Amino acid sequence: MTSTETGFVLAVHGGAGTVPRVDATASLTALHHTGLRRALIAGRDILAVGGRAIDAVTAAVVVLEDDPLFNAGRGSVFTATGTQEMDASVMDGSDHRAGAVAGILGPRNPVLAARAVMERSNQVFLIGEGALAFCREQGIAFAEPSYFYSEKRWRELQHELAGRRREMPIVTAEQGHGTVGAVARDRHGNLAAATSTGGMVGKTPGRVGDSPIIGAGIYADNGTCAVSATGHGEFFMRYGAAFEVAARMRYANQSLQLAARSVVDGLAAMGGSGGLVAVDRTRALAMPFNTAGMYRGYVQDGGAIHTAVYDEPYQAGPH
Amino acid sequence: MTSTETGFVLAVHGGAGTVPRVDATASLTALHHTGLRRALIAGRDILAVGGRAIDAVTAAVVVLEDDPLFNAGRGSVFTATGTQEMDASVMDGSDHRAGAVAGILGPRNPVLAARAVMERSNQVFLIGEGALAFCREQGIAFAEPSYFYSEKRWRELQHELAGRRREMPIVTAEQGHGTVGAVARDRHGNLAAATSTGGMVGKTPGRVGDSPIIGAGIYADNGTCAVSATGHGEFFMRYGAAFEVAARMRYANQSLQLAARSVVDGLAAMGGSGGLVAVDRTRALAMPFNTAGMYRGYVQDGGAIHTAVYDEPYQAGPH
Repeated sequence: MTSTETGFVLAVHGGAGTVPRVDATASLTALHHTGLRRALIAGRDILAVGGRAIDAVTAAVVVLEDDPLFNAGRGSVFTATGTQEMDASVMDGSDHRAGAVAGILGPRNPVLAARAVMERSNQVFLIGEGALAFCREQGIAFAEPSYFYSEKRWRELQHELAGRRREMPIVTAEQGHGTVGAVARDRHGNLAAATSTGGMVGKTPGRVGDSPIIGAGIYADNGTCAVSATGHGEFFMRYGAAFEVAARMRYANQSLQLAARSVVDGLAAMGGSGGLVAVDRTRALAMPFNTAGMYRGYVQDGGAIHTAVYDEPYQAGPH
Repeated sequence: MTSTETGFVLAVHGGAGTVPRVDATASLTALHHTGLRRALIAGRDILAVGGRAIDAVTAAVVVLEDDPLFNAGRGSVFTATGTQEMDASVMDGSDHRAGAVAGILGPRNPVLAARAVMERSNQVFLIGEGALAFCREQGIAFAEPSYFYSEKRWRELQHELAGRRREMPIVTAEQGHGTVGAVARDRHGNLAAATSTGGMVGKTPGRVGDSPIIGAGIYADNGTCAVSATGHGEFFMRYGAAFEVAARMRYANQSLQLAARSVVDGLAAMGGSGGLVAVDRTRALAMPFNTAGMYRGYVQDGGAIHTAVYDEPYQAGPH
């Protein structure tokens, strides 16, 4: 039994800019719904027994990283040179602690690497070889390169490179914006966020987007909101997208809905496609996007699990 | 001849948390003043002929990077393993374009690498080997490792490591907070910022602080302000320090002075030592710090060059 004041809410995304609706087969769409649902269940099971928001968002993102369908962890895309470089971050709104990693290949779950940086180091952000050395010291689970390889992602890279050779680069929306993330408000009123990505298909090696940047692809502050973003990362960095949602709430007294929608619309006006998921301390929820779709879902305390891809009604599953 | 409306202003910093006043010899202090003055002259000479803010802040930071006295470029400190890893960023407030690099050793002026990312790539942030490959492609000037080596910095590392072995780490304020930066408002009303650092002495390899993070150690937006920060980077990232100054101006209608002071005081309350330099479109200037001192200086259109370290009156030099 939970009151409105003390209930939890959890939202996840699996990237904005989806497979164009006309190309999306029913079976592929069903797999996306299943993946989102599994992530929501993992986080919900923690929140439903009074667990912490930071644990719920971490668990939800682990599930999405383990699912080869999403561009993070196991399903990460390839860079222009055929390597893989993953970025991830976590932030706890109760104390503004944060952890992030960028440019890593090895840890099975990059979000757990980010979590370790937050909890077991004096740093916030570790990159490349230094980040990997830290992960090894901390006993973070690594996977073989073959674990992260898939024919599908390799073909996506070849397709993109072939397009570039014809001077018609084909970074489709799905490929461009694959990122996963979660935000939660737990029964204690704490907010948290987590974000993880393989980046953009065919990206320049060394390129880091908004996912591991505090204030761009992630932000959490108990006084305002928790945000996880997905989209054309360069725009989200240049406009401080996640921080901007919080700033509008704190200083302009905007609602979460208005702040989140305004930021996503503002990015669209600048040419920055994408979306975000956000929750606030009152359990309000916002999931705006300026693309054709955004893989997304949410669950509220005592409620059903809801998932959607485009602007269709949410699919509601059993409690 | 310039009007108040159209005049320029340029401010620089060479790090907050200075040599304790009791230890600062007159000759060392004089060298710091000279270094700051040279940076201000370089930027001033661009602004005084109608040049752009982005060019002025870049030029000022190049001078500070070339000066072995400051912890950036040539004078970068060493990591715990005796390597050097530099971070830098630039941002143009007229169009929110930004460029940043992290974890690089090679380019003589990391700020020029960041500038190239901004102007000659589709990315905002490049790290490590990927960033170096980009710099080589772009013909950015590299220096030999010996260029970046100094006995003084090496001794600082040994001193810090010895302190850690005695479980009394000695990250002095100067060593901890060495970062350089510049902000400017040009005669056309455009704002820009640049930040560059070697990081913290004895840092974990792979550690990235706030200097290359848009919204943390740097921000520029013609509508509000340009900010370059220096301090305990983890706190500046967790609280989005540079973005926060702009948000308070935009949404809470705070003056630059109030916003900048509030952010630096707020960081102090959280345990985050440091400071920042900031300018706005009305040519207002703020240089707050919560440490014993901050190497800093400014010049306004038609005025003298002013430099200071602690809370003493500014030294004013000839026009």
